Amino acid sequence: MISKLIEQIKIKNAPVVVGLDPQLKFIPDELIQKWYKECGYSLEAVGEAFFEFNKKIIDSTYDIIPAVKPQIAMYEQYGIPGIIAFKKTVDYAHEKGLVVIGDIKRGDIGSTSESYAIGHIGSVEIGEEKIVPFDEDIVTVNPYLGSDGVNPFVDICNKEDKGIFVLVKTSNPSSGEFQDKLSDGKPIYEIVAEKVVEWGNASMDGDYSNVGAVVGATYPEMGKILRKLMPKTYILVPGYGAQGGSGKDLKEYFNEDGLGAIVNSSRGIIAAYKNENYSSFGSSGFADASRAAAEDMIKDIAENCFA
Amino acid sequence: MISKLIEQIKIKNAPVVVGLDPQLKFIPDELIQKWYKECGYSLEAVGEAFFEFNKKIIDSTYDIIPAVKPQIAMYEQYGIPGIIAFKKTVDYAHEKGLVVIGDIKRGDIGSTSESYAIGHIGSVEIGEEKIVPFDEDIVTVNPYLGSDGVNPFVDICNKEDKGIFVLVKTSNPSSGEFQDKLSDGKPIYEIVAEKVVEWGNASMDGDYSNVGAVVGATYPEMGKILRKLMPKTYILVPGYGAQGGSGKDLKEYFNEDGLGAIVNSSRGIIAAYKNENYSSFGSSGFADASRAAAEDMIKDIAENCFA
Repeated sequence: MISKLIEQIKIKNAPVVVGLDPQLKFIPDELIQKWYKECGYSLEAVGEAFFEFNKKIIDSTYDIIPAVKPQIAMYEQYGIPGIIAFKKTVDYAHEKGLVVIGDIKRGDIGSTSESYAIGHIGSVEIGEEKIVPFDEDIVTVNPYLGSDGVNPFVDICNKEDKGIFVLVKTSNPSSGEFQDKLSDGKPIYEIVAEKVVEWGNASMDGDYSNVGAVVGATYPEMGKILRKLMPKTYILVPGYGAQGGSGKDLKEYFNEDGLGAIVNSSRGIIAAYKNENYSSFGSSGFADASRAAAEDMIKDIAENCFA
Repeated sequence: MISKLIEQIKIKNAPVVVGLDPQLKFIPDELIQKWYKECGYSLEAVGEAFFEFNKKIIDSTYDIIPAVKPQIAMYEQYGIPGIIAFKKTVDYAHEKGLVVIGDIKRGDIGSTSESYAIGHIGSVEIGEEKIVPFDEDIVTVNPYLGSDGVNPFVDICNKEDKGIFVLVKTSNPSSGEFQDKLSDGKPIYEIVAEKVVEWGNASMDGDYSNVGAVVGATYPEMGKILRKLMPKTYILVPGYGAQGGSGKDLKEYFNEDGLGAIVNSSRGIIAAYKNENYSSFGSSGFADASRAAAEDMIKDIAENCFA
């Protein structure tokens, strides 16, 4: 799978992913009111509005980006109708040729982790049928439970040509509480990174592994070290834009081949029309504002990382 | 919420929780075939079968147990119809007066963690309506992202009188890969435990906190230390039965007040009819076998921990 993502990154010449993390406050009023009229003040109304919002953003950006990353929490918050919107978003992004990274941060043990892996990037056998439940291409995985939790995902990566990004160093302010603790002089995130390399060796796909890592844009010094520690690992970089990371922080996340990292922006793109830089688009032009913000992000990264 | 769980534990005189973690191989053939006939080989058939299976186990055990713990991965594996079965299980357990612990192991940052918390133990405001999406009472939470990931759950615990169990030391063989790493002579799970106490102080409910901890039955020595380190923290103990833990390993997880721990068994109860000890019940008596296994588990814990 990582080779498919790389192919898309090369075609679009853009190592970026748009985080489809809808929140009610991002949805233009006319759009949400339409669904309230149709479905009442209900979970269904929000689910329908989220999907329409995503669909328009996908329509206006799919030709310039390689991938989208829906954050399932935003959908799960609205119960089953929310999750239906998540699934419709995955399917619609596929229709448009995008790689879909499900930001699910699952992680459990043994058969339980296997269930998550099968549900999101695999297929279930039911009687004589083989059915694909959620059908993402790549998912994020939490490593706290160790190899028992991650290996079932790696097995599915190999079986179904899929990928994962394992949380190594997250972008949030308190990520250091446990991740930065030193053990024998080495922070936990480096110990996790070493395991990512080990898990990744079991699922190579060309020059890179199907087992990637999440390293936040907000910690560029650590990103530099982790880049060297995991040379064949693709790094998913959250934290660009709204969380404070910018193009100049990102150079070290890439390898000399110009590959090895894909940078996510969520609200910076999907809620661009609410930002003063793009406010001229107005709420009815929200999807065009998203395209403009995506173009600016691609340019920022190109100028700062590949000039 | 923890006071409600404790009340139920006292009424039933049973510090146990039944893990409703259905797998296709646990479902009696006549039950699954009925749904294949009704819905074909489909996700819907499995969802319906899971719910009927759970319902019968709840019906045959609800008067002797305080709580159930559905593991959402088992349902998520079957896509949206699976998650519908999860939600129906939560609602049915509530009808029968049980406390519902959603084993979801979610954990993310900021507004994303808040979304998970709202979706599972809180409520969303949609226009003029306040809607409860999943409606569990307590959920499990992964701490790898630090306080940013956990505090949104603690806020919802306070706002809606709910609870969480934070993963501290999990029951699986490889849990030590990161959790046991020593930092300044202290294992990571102890550092997490100290944070659990801190988070827990912000949500006390009587003698115990709404912020509990997960500590596996398979590591009784660590359980003993963690019990002392977190005196006001309820401990959810997985790993009893099929994973190798037994009543004699559990004494140290309880406080001197006879409280402080609740022990989970999943397949040991729900698939009891497949175990030779209960095979006389046959597959048509699977729910009665579950009751017998639950009674034996309660007795085992009473004899070994409170004799």
